[in-house]
Amino acid sequence: MERALREARAAAERGEVPIGAVIVDPAGTVLAAAGNRTEADRDPTAHAEMLAIRAAAAALGAPRLVDCDLYVTLEPCPMCAQAISFARLRRVYFGASDPKGGGIDHGPRIFSQPTCHHRPEIYGGLAEQEAGELLRSFFKARR
Amino acid sequence: MERALREARAAAERGEVPIGAVIVDPAGTVLAAAGNRTEADRDPTAHAEMLAIRAAAAALGAPRLVDCDLYVTLEPCPMCAQAISFARLRRVYFGASDPKGGGIDHGPRIFSQPTCHHRPEIYGGLAEQEAGELLRSFFKARR
Repeated sequence: MERALREARAAAERGEVPIGAVIVDPAGTVLAAAGNRTEADRDPTAHAEMLAIRAAAAALGAPRLVDCDLYVTLEPCPMCAQAISFARLRRVYFGASDPKGGGIDHGPRIFSQPTCHHRPEIYGGLAEQEAGELLRSFFKARR
Repeated sequence: MERALREARAAAERGEVPIGAVIVDPAGTVLAAAGNRTEADRDPTAHAEMLAIRAAAAALGAPRLVDCDLYVTLEPCPMCAQAISFARLRRVYFGASDPKGGGIDHGPRIFSQPTCHHRPEIYGGLAEQEAGELLRSFFKARR
């Protein structure tokens, strides 16, 4: 999660919403790390999790990240949650909870849908305070 | 929708699930057209809609596709539905309904969530028979 926080801080420095994500393989090796890039890439799908999933799939040469785990500083949105399911990630560790935009514990609760075919194990609240503080100070500075 | 069906047929010829998507600007000019590429790109996020959104945003140099419309041969999944919302697409025209994996009229019904901040107008059932037949014959041939 420390690596994901570093990616989030780097995103903030680029003027992006500070969210970072890391994917590790079953041996704990980092396959991919990314921060949010929606502004830099002018791409509404360029969330940290999506970029990490795409990079990890490219690194493995496979569209399924079996037995791999994701660390992300904020509760994933519905788009990213569904991508996590498609990617067959084993575990998701997330930092701050996101009542407004989250898609795991909030909104459509993607993994609780009967039409969701792969549900990762979920561990929320890791480094929650630091992850949340990064977001709060980013939005405070922009207001 | 005819162009989206052509993309879907081309996807089938590549061995991909036959789904195609097209994005047009307010003047009706095609900004992007794509077929599903999850296998070719080894990317679990490479659905036709995601590729079309990313290409259209790149073409416009903007992460928001204001007043642009999406044509897609199958009801979008929850990942694509959320990406459609983030991209601020104005209208979504889709072909076949998808009770198993759809995210608009089925499953998490992304646009009906109170946490969904942009809801496009939705028009389902366009060229439904042809779009559905493409999918049925693809899966029948694979069984």
